[in-house]
Amino acid sequence: MGHPYIPSDLSLPDYVPGSLSPFTIVAVYVLSSLFVATTIWLISGRFPRVSTTERWLMCWWAFTGLTHIVLEGYFAFSPQFYKDTTPCYLSEVWKEYSKGDSRYAARDAGVVTVEGITAVLEGPASLLLVYAIAKRAAYREVLQLAISLGQLYGTAVYFITAILEGDNFASSTYHYFAYYVFANSFWILIPSLIIVRSWKKICAATEAQVQKKAKAL
Amino acid sequence: MGHPYIPSDLSLPDYVPGSLSPFTIVAVYVLSSLFVATTIWLISGRFPRVSTTERWLMCWWAFTGLTHIVLEGYFAFSPQFYKDTTPCYLSEVWKEYSKGDSRYAARDAGVVTVEGITAVLEGPASLLLVYAIAKRAAYREVLQLAISLGQLYGTAVYFITAILEGDNFASSTYHYFAYYVFANSFWILIPSLIIVRSWKKICAATEAQVQKKAKAL
Repeated sequence: MGHPYIPSDLSLPDYVPGSLSPFTIVAVYVLSSLFVATTIWLISGRFPRVSTTERWLMCWWAFTGLTHIVLEGYFAFSPQFYKDTTPCYLSEVWKEYSKGDSRYAARDAGVVTVEGITAVLEGPASLLLVYAIAKRAAYREVLQLAISLGQLYGTAVYFITAILEGDNFASSTYHYFAYYVFANSFWILIPSLIIVRSWKKICAATEAQVQKKAKAL
Repeated sequence: MGHPYIPSDLSLPDYVPGSLSPFTIVAVYVLSSLFVATTIWLISGRFPRVSTTERWLMCWWAFTGLTHIVLEGYFAFSPQFYKDTTPCYLSEVWKEYSKGDSRYAARDAGVVTVEGITAVLEGPASLLLVYAIAKRAAYREVLQLAISLGQLYGTAVYFITAILEGDNFASSTYHYFAYYVFANSFWILIPSLIIVRSWKKICAATEAQVQKKAKAL
């Protein structure tokens, strides 16, 4: 049985087409993400010292952490997802996403490596941040910076390897822009904003400490 | 003409063997690195507020920054280095190093991507740190953390992609351990130590700022 991916000579023996519609797959993801974000938003309101920006950040870290662990974690450790005969939501996600980037179905080493690092390290660390921001832990800024840098590095490796390998992995222009470009753009934009914010906060804290020491002399 | 790399069926048309001995290549690298480190050590002694640890760090950042820019920068932008007929030191380095990891000669997309990011972003940022530490700039801890995280992420991608692709790229056990394992181990060990140090310093600064604000209330 043929597969819908590009390049069309990609060998995927025993490929089983997905049975959920793209609309259903995206709707389940969006709705469950909104449910998670709403829950975190409501809970975070009970911490009086957490600012509005920090409440948004807690929602982001819960959303991105669960995406890393559940979706990307499933992919990283399921080399045969494209053979799945059951309408399992997680294999359906990656059967559909591979239309935007067939390197997922083809098990490209660079993609699997980045997804593995993201799922195993950045996922749990993102969830830890939800707690760290609520508790105003001293490490909350440096951990936000560290994970966001990791997300940016991973996205850079993801796009640059694709370009070096010919950038011909999408089934159509629509899939190229909707899945490969648009869906990933959030993990460039939001980490960049967080890096700028945390960087400034860390420098301000270092500066304040230097001035305190200078005064003490 | 055949090449000395593994897998032996790797196609490298017009390959020209290196003409410098491995000893010469390593000696030039070690001696020029020692020259750079000694120069930075002597200059850094003229900054009275820079601690001994920070002087060592300045030597490291100068050494690693020049390695990233000169050696790795040459590799990232020289896809045909293995055809070089002149005894150019930089092409000789990579002809020799490819005996430890033939993905360099084979132009593996993951390796080129990591080396490109390292050369273009981390190299100049490392040299900036030599200045930032000497001037005690407020961003010096966060920049050390950021670059060290990037170095660790790059090394992780480097090793994990090799394992996923079969870990069979070394011409001999000697080259595997001397080039691939030993030479890279410095970029796991030293960034890890710097991350722990900068992380603690940033948390201490954040903590101090929080206590100062609490006192002010």
